[in-house]
Amino acid sequence: MTREIFNFLSIENKLVSTYIFYCCILILKMMAVMLLTALQRHRYMAFINPEDADYLNVKPKIDDHVERVRRAHLNDLESIPIFFVAGFAYILTNPSVTCATWLFRIFTAVRFIHTFVYAVYVLPQPARVLSFSIGALITSYMTFKSILYLM
Amino acid sequence: MTREIFNFLSIENKLVSTYIFYCCILILKMMAVMLLTALQRHRYMAFINPEDADYLNVKPKIDDHVERVRRAHLNDLESIPIFFVAGFAYILTNPSVTCATWLFRIFTAVRFIHTFVYAVYVLPQPARVLSFSIGALITSYMTFKSILYLM
Amino acid sequence: MTREIFNFLSIENKLVSTYIFYCCILILKMMAVMLLTALQRHRYMAFINPEDADYLNVKPKIDDHVERVRRAHLNDLESIPIFFVAGFAYILTNPSVTCATWLFRIFTAVRFIHTFVYAVYVLPQPARVLSFSIGALITSYMTFKSILYLM
Repeated sequence: MTREIFNFLSIENKLVSTYIFYCCILILKMMAVMLLTALQRHRYMAFINPEDADYLNVKPKIDDHVERVRRAHLNDLESIPIFFVAGFAYILTNPSVTCATWLFRIFTAVRFIHTFVYAVYVLPQPARVLSFSIGALITSYMTFKSILYLM
Repeated sequence: MTREIFNFLSIENKLVSTYIFYCCILILKMMAVMLLTALQRHRYMAFINPEDADYLNVKPKIDDHVERVRRAHLNDLESIPIFFVAGFAYILTNPSVTCATWLFRIFTAVRFIHTFVYAVYVLPQPARVLSFSIGALITSYMTFKSILYLM
Repeated sequence: MTREIFNFLSIENKLVSTYIFYCCILILKMMAVMLLTALQRHRYMAFINPEDADYLNVKPKIDDHVERVRRAHLNDLESIPIFFVAGFAYILTNPSVTCATWLFRIFTAVRFIHTFVYAVYVLPQPARVLSFSIGALITSYMTFKSILYLM
């Protein structure tokens, strides 16, 4: 590969700024899930650590409302950091700004939907599997496109 | 956004090197937690996998000293990778080197404190919730500042 | 540090492209583990969420074949995102392309081996601990080298 991939970053910066913008939105979304975990722990008084339960004079317990938010969060940890890296690789392949923006936008939207149907208002399947799969397909596409570009 | 955000990276490289430095410290910190998990597993002979227990001629079991380190580690996984991305976005907003350095430094310090009071020497709450919250506030601040800069 | 670390990225781009290539391979590897989790869940009909079990008319249950894949995946989440960041810091230290390529290649290989001996075809220890440790040593080396370079 002889193309100077970092040079174009200073010119085509619309790609970089769009990428950074959606990364930031996804970070806030993940932090909202952390906040939701804390809220559900207080609402259902379900704390795993003895020192947390002691602080509020309750007994440690596990509650499924909390576990559900934690599973949604774990799915975020499995899906979003690899999107950050795949998205970075993808913008180095010099895609069209429109195409990149739509991929980032749809990924962000389906991750919000995923959390909502998993942890906020539980919907029957295939709501969750569809939102997850669309996100995974976008990450896969960006990754494959980057590998092909590098060859 | 017409500012050429990557151009300034070659000039204002003090920001980049400070950012990379604290990222590296946090990586070593996370690896130390992995090592601590392994040490606690051997100390309390608590292995989940049958092939691990077999290798040491013990029965698989779950021990709370190990689970505590694993929860501290999971909290790292929830907090630190998003800091890496938020910090990267933040240095592209051209902040003052002093301000960025202090944010990175305090974040790193509170993550060390978080692990210490969670998994090494358990302190009563609100020790852990405070150290976690300060870190989360720093990540939020950097993320919001980046979003505002991009608008 | 007075060296302009980002300037050389536009010249020495073989390092960047090699780094991006192995990041992409590791992303695909992690996505394969997600797919394996879904396959094992269907094979052993082991779903945690009531809405998933309902959709297939089974009862929620936990199965060790699934938990094993999930533990392999969690180990990926603990090891691979920090490799992404350590690798990025490392290529900024201007290492030889040969050395960097071999480190990335060996890391990628041992992570494949780790998943294989953990979740696909279980081998007795120390197969898993060795593959994990080689990966962790590579990440540590790159992190220490980056810290020393920045000083």
